[in-house]
Amino acid sequence: MYTIQAGSYQLELGPFLESSLVDVLDKYKGATKLLIADENTSEACLSYLITNFDALSKAEVVILPVGEENKSLEIVGNVWDILSEYGVTRHDLIINVGGGLVTDMGGFIASCYKRGLDFINVPTSLLGMVDASIGGKTGVNLGDFKNQIGVFNDPVAVYIDTIFLSTLPEEEMLSGYAEMLKHGLITSPELFARVVEQMEEPEEFSEDLLRDCIEVKNGIVISDPLEAGPRKKLNFGHTIGHAIEGFLIYSDQVTHGYAVAIGMILESFLSMKRNLLSQEDFNTIESALLKHYSMPIFSNDDIQAITSLLNNDKKNKHGKILCCLLEGIGECTYDHEISVQEVTEVFLHYKNQQINLN
Amino acid sequence: MYTIQAGSYQLELGPFLESSLVDVLDKYKGATKLLIADENTSEACLSYLITNFDALSKAEVVILPVGEENKSLEIVGNVWDILSEYGVTRHDLIINVGGGLVTDMGGFIASCYKRGLDFINVPTSLLGMVDASIGGKTGVNLGDFKNQIGVFNDPVAVYIDTIFLSTLPEEEMLSGYAEMLKHGLITSPELFARVVEQMEEPEEFSEDLLRDCIEVKNGIVISDPLEAGPRKKLNFGHTIGHAIEGFLIYSDQVTHGYAVAIGMILESFLSMKRNLLSQEDFNTIESALLKHYSMPIFSNDDIQAITSLLNNDKKNKHGKILCCLLEGIGECTYDHEISVQEVTEVFLHYKNQQINLN
Repeated sequence: MYTIQAGSYQLELGPFLESSLVDVLDKYKGATKLLIADENTSEACLSYLITNFDALSKAEVVILPVGEENKSLEIVGNVWDILSEYGVTRHDLIINVGGGLVTDMGGFIASCYKRGLDFINVPTSLLGMVDASIGGKTGVNLGDFKNQIGVFNDPVAVYIDTIFLSTLPEEEMLSGYAEMLKHGLITSPELFARVVEQMEEPEEFSEDLLRDCIEVKNGIVISDPLEAGPRKKLNFGHTIGHAIEGFLIYSDQVTHGYAVAIGMILESFLSMKRNLLSQEDFNTIESALLKHYSMPIFSNDDIQAITSLLNNDKKNKHGKILCCLLEGIGECTYDHEISVQEVTEVFLHYKNQQINLN
Repeated sequence: MYTIQAGSYQLELGPFLESSLVDVLDKYKGATKLLIADENTSEACLSYLITNFDALSKAEVVILPVGEENKSLEIVGNVWDILSEYGVTRHDLIINVGGGLVTDMGGFIASCYKRGLDFINVPTSLLGMVDASIGGKTGVNLGDFKNQIGVFNDPVAVYIDTIFLSTLPEEEMLSGYAEMLKHGLITSPELFARVVEQMEEPEEFSEDLLRDCIEVKNGIVISDPLEAGPRKKLNFGHTIGHAIEGFLIYSDQVTHGYAVAIGMILESFLSMKRNLLSQEDFNTIESALLKHYSMPIFSNDDIQAITSLLNNDKKNKHGKILCCLLEGIGECTYDHEISVQEVTEVFLHYKNQQINLN
């Protein structure tokens, strides 16, 4: 069992049965336990928990509808109504079992119900394990705007058992790998290279690599929990990535990681155009990413719609669009002001390239 | 200017122009300022702020609809949409100007928008000054359930100028006095007597008394910010009071303080029935309160509906209804388990009394 101290709580990486989960559940004797999952949550994982932990045998189960369009206040309100009907008190316990959608929404549901009840996160997607499991961010979308509503609040514990990763579809693994690539790109060329290598041999999943990526995120979050400075680096790829994701919420659904991967390519290109990143490093990044994440084809109208969403990014300040840029592989800086015009040109570069190829 | 250190922020009691408000606003140069008020907010106070503080001259104003039924997720969602339209970022500032509804909702709106932006509270009702101004509680109702959804989060500062109290209708003053009576009942017979006296001479409002009541609440909150123990005393009168308020949300609107006053009479009666409170102390409390707050007439169906709401009180634990009781004037204890049956009998006592009087 590998244990990481993450803010106020512990994250345990290893088999559930060897973890402290049974002891933690024991602290909530007499409390109602509520499992929140979604239709995508690994059946295997959910039934394993219910079957193997006595404390969960009588747990209520709430299933959230899947899809970013359902990561909404309306659904959260419905769940709050259900909690009221069940007579859930602030001394009860919520256990979120699923991907980032479940842990983000479930965390928000728990944090605001009766001004906060305890929750445990059991991420079942690679993305959830490497990203949403650390940092205390909870939230839902507001229309097209990703995670516009939420709070910072820590779970009481996080449990990760990678055995259930084998049930994940490939695109979900790719979504997680995108964030792991990001952890390398913003802190370490070696880590980046290890993730690239892992993606070449997906059948042999390295728990050590996952652990190192979690440690990277955890180190950054601990140094700046409320994102006043260095934590902003974790937003690399996310300024443009979130806009792409927001634009696609109601049409083609893409995974968060895929949108971030495309965002990272475009923000790396922007870094190169500003002479911060060398052509060589850019080529390394671009070829590594394009191998697994194909560049989507956006019309001019699409590009306009996507770039207009940049104006409402959470990271903006006083009307300025702020973005992370790379100064090398492993070297990320933040709070760069970028313009809609500039981002439009980056999109057009790839659009023209695609037209030339056709 | 009287200054109280309340958790992470300062509360200033005195004329706005002599307060630190101008300096605090100065720290938000370049930020969008958003004033949140409701239709009941003292016009005089709102226009005084906009006219006298340059930093607020271009502030956006959002007016919330009045009434407990509008203290809802739906209205909060609408305001979040407006903030998105205005392009408000997490570096901007919300200033809540109004009664408890405005500071509770405005605090929640600020706390969850983009995971939290700064807010200042300017309570304009006596209830807001003495109660909502301290303690970091924010929230909205969920259907009939009062403040079911919310978070604990402190404003950056609170400013109270009692000059604007003179514009308040009498029932609003009575609503504030009820919480002040509570502060006496749970901590000090002297303070209780002073509030009773103040209510006899309402035209001479004592800022010292207000200050002392705020200090009582502040002392309790500082000793137990997350309501794990002693802070529960502040809920005296609120177990039954909230149920009455919830029941009346959609019919006769009553002020929060009126519901709490009735709740305090009934919970005092319960305390006496359990031999915790002497008949003499009970008589003192009952006669002082009934002088200003008349006992409503509830039908048997009403009583059943009210008591059924007790099962969803935020203070409950593992399905038990918990309540504060008095062991004397100034002596409050908490976490007493009470039953629906017991509360029903208390209601019936007053109902029978009314029938006998008629």
